[in-house]
Amino acid sequence: MNKKLILDLTATYTDLYELTMGQAYFLAGRKDESAVFDYFFRKNPFKGGYTIFAGLPDLLAILEDFRFSKDDLDFLKAQSFHPDYLAYLKGFRFRGTIYSLPEGDVVFPTRPILRVDGNLIETQLIETVLLNMLNFQSLIATKASRMRLAAGDGLLIDFGLRRAQGFGGYHASRAAVIGGFEGTSNVRTARDYDLRAFGTMAHSYVQSCESEIEAFRSFAAARPDDCVLLVDTYNTLKSGIPNAITVAKEMERRDHRLKSIRLDSGDLAYLAKQSRIMLDEAGLHYVKIAASNQLDEYVIRSLVAQAAPIDVFAVGTSLVTGQPDAALDGVYKLAWTNGHPVIKLSENVFKITLPDKKQVWRAINDQGLFLGADVVGFDDETNIDMMHHPFVPHQSSAVNASKIEPSLHLVMAGGKIVHNPPPLSQTAQYSRERLKMLPAEYKRFENPHVYKVGISSRLKALRDSLVAQHGG
Amino acid sequence: MNKKLILDLTATYTDLYELTMGQAYFLAGRKDESAVFDYFFRKNPFKGGYTIFAGLPDLLAILEDFRFSKDDLDFLKAQSFHPDYLAYLKGFRFRGTIYSLPEGDVVFPTRPILRVDGNLIETQLIETVLLNMLNFQSLIATKASRMRLAAGDGLLIDFGLRRAQGFGGYHASRAAVIGGFEGTSNVRTARDYDLRAFGTMAHSYVQSCESEIEAFRSFAAARPDDCVLLVDTYNTLKSGIPNAITVAKEMERRDHRLKSIRLDSGDLAYLAKQSRIMLDEAGLHYVKIAASNQLDEYVIRSLVAQAAPIDVFAVGTSLVTGQPDAALDGVYKLAWTNGHPVIKLSENVFKITLPDKKQVWRAINDQGLFLGADVVGFDDETNIDMMHHPFVPHQSSAVNASKIEPSLHLVMAGGKIVHNPPPLSQTAQYSRERLKMLPAEYKRFENPHVYKVGISSRLKALRDSLVAQHGG
Repeated sequence: MNKKLILDLTATYTDLYELTMGQAYFLAGRKDESAVFDYFFRKNPFKGGYTIFAGLPDLLAILEDFRFSKDDLDFLKAQSFHPDYLAYLKGFRFRGTIYSLPEGDVVFPTRPILRVDGNLIETQLIETVLLNMLNFQSLIATKASRMRLAAGDGLLIDFGLRRAQGFGGYHASRAAVIGGFEGTSNVRTARDYDLRAFGTMAHSYVQSCESEIEAFRSFAAARPDDCVLLVDTYNTLKSGIPNAITVAKEMERRDHRLKSIRLDSGDLAYLAKQSRIMLDEAGLHYVKIAASNQLDEYVIRSLVAQAAPIDVFAVGTSLVTGQPDAALDGVYKLAWTNGHPVIKLSENVFKITLPDKKQVWRAINDQGLFLGADVVGFDDETNIDMMHHPFVPHQSSAVNASKIEPSLHLVMAGGKIVHNPPPLSQTAQYSRERLKMLPAEYKRFENPHVYKVGISSRLKALRDSLVAQHGG
Repeated sequence: MNKKLILDLTATYTDLYELTMGQAYFLAGRKDESAVFDYFFRKNPFKGGYTIFAGLPDLLAILEDFRFSKDDLDFLKAQSFHPDYLAYLKGFRFRGTIYSLPEGDVVFPTRPILRVDGNLIETQLIETVLLNMLNFQSLIATKASRMRLAAGDGLLIDFGLRRAQGFGGYHASRAAVIGGFEGTSNVRTARDYDLRAFGTMAHSYVQSCESEIEAFRSFAAARPDDCVLLVDTYNTLKSGIPNAITVAKEMERRDHRLKSIRLDSGDLAYLAKQSRIMLDEAGLHYVKIAASNQLDEYVIRSLVAQAAPIDVFAVGTSLVTGQPDAALDGVYKLAWTNGHPVIKLSENVFKITLPDKKQVWRAINDQGLFLGADVVGFDDETNIDMMHHPFVPHQSSAVNASKIEPSLHLVMAGGKIVHNPPPLSQTAQYSRERLKMLPAEYKRFENPHVYKVGISSRLKALRDSLVAQHGG
């Protein structure tokens, strides 16, 4: 039974069809044919104007260790896979090469974020776990960054583990920090990723004590330098705040300072204002106010707009599950195989894929801001002055950039990670700097400006010829 | 780095405040005080009329193995926890007792689903992981059961792993089967829980071959007895179906049968009907039609209502993430401590908790259907003929049941699992039978009937006296 809990991630954390296709390639003698896949998504989450890319180091670590265990192979044998293919899977390792956007960067729909080069089987087998890891962490980092934009100088803490999607909570807390959260209540993720762990107290603590004031006293005694008191178990303004003030004064006499009170119900704006007045009148200007209870970017924005004196926003469900979208629609599409570029046609032109081994160029203006356009082309096209609409014929525009920079970089070569990942604090800092380069109109919540993605003249010519060839 | 991937679940998969409160109890010498917590939720997900309870065996297995590793203790030491408390945590095991609803049963808001009896520290420390596991799996099992209701006789397959919330995908596929799915594409979960694994082919397979028909031929050769062909890579009706028919005829000559075709884009109702006609005209009545692409219970219901001849519904994102809710709002509330029952007051009367060690009685009518009311009371109250509204004063009604049955059963004693869990197929069967006992008006998607939860006269008297005592 315990085996089932210990998610020692193996190569079967995948869809069966990856293995089925792998077998078909193998039995057809095509296992060494080359392939290139692109990872991209089609729609920003939360009706927003951008997405924060996250999950890369976790994915790369998974791929570096991607293998089939004995239990895996036994199970596949029972599914009637071919013995020769099973022998191949037994020794299987991912030896491909990956080019990627840096984790934490700002990114937009339809442009490649990451490119995988390798043989047909290895590039196919990693599809599911790649999508699983990147889609989810990018979703959560994006949600977190929206709250960061809304919260002004407020501290943002992830309190979501109890409402997270099972073991998904593990990476949710990581991604939240990339998007701008200062820390998490999730001890395990804090431990593994060197994050700041935060915690307060629950109603049960207050209930379990003789009285609210006795609860506050014993909690302060146990945690004199990091004491946060939850004030709404009985009545926030008539009981919780007065008792917290009494205990804070007692702590002062022992040379300690109450760190914060936490509001977890009722009208947070009103209660925060009243609590602030009461604390200030008691001379407790230093005691911070934390708020929780069904927060999201819109509630936080509203609280800030009302000048509610809230110093710390503790966010749960909406953050760690990425409500209401709950998923990023990232896909993984074949762009090259066995020596030639390929496309996927569709009756929906927006779903026609871009062929070949591509680079994506980001255009930057003379103020150091993103110009509002990424251009998909090739590595040797450093001088792009014109881009074409990827789907609409005869629509093109000039690229008046003061600089264009390549956005896909080598991160894995022959199955080995090229650089150790930076500390998460550095990735979060990088993400914040990149988001600053994005003009405000792309960051607003309502009807944000659409960031353009164009294709270079050379890519357009290639794509059009392939469409024509397939009678599209 | 690999350490971070291998989610060897330890006791730090929790919120910091559980540990902080545990320390306060420990330092106050209260570690052996008794406590009882209830798990319940306040709102059915998806605006529905019921919830399917899931996740229990996984939770119990986690609790049986709940311990702090050396890495955990080192991290907690760095967070300034007290050495005596750390020594206690080093030897910590969960030794509590749990009463629970059976996994797969139908359940409703505000009534206890599971009750934990133990000491203050152990009952507190398990809160987060308990909520994490039960909230998530119950959400997904409920979503799955709604699709089961919509799909009629159609086969339901989970294809969601790529859009699942990271490692949350592991248990999502399990919960889907409890709710009525026949299997999953998720190989690892199929392996660990003995589920049926399903798989087809991706567009990339077709693209990687010389032509669509060559792709179909090679795939059929590699998987002659379990061959599903994806027909929309180029043009479903002009290319995909005709090529599938050709290959199916070739398979017949080798004494094999094409199992199914899969539609993954366009108007699924129209394409299924046209595909059925073309397959039937070719004498391929036995070839099934599978459909995927953004399905949920509403789309499935619409397809069934249009009499689209779809045999297999493959569902991804909306299933495994429980869109749009993405979380069940389950909570864990203290009901008893150190020899006496406790409540939590709230300015919102609906958030006042129910005190004491409770049982929940389910009323069944003379037709063997659920009567429409659960009564929260005590173990020795087997003769309940009256129930009271839990929140509204002076509102009560008679319980005209032909039978009342207790719904909480002993599942863990002294930290040990009492019974081995049944195979998942048996839990799924039980769930289906229980859902059949729920009258139809509670199962409809639009404005379902509200299942009543009442409290017994004895519980009401106790609750009212505690409210009065706290001046509520």
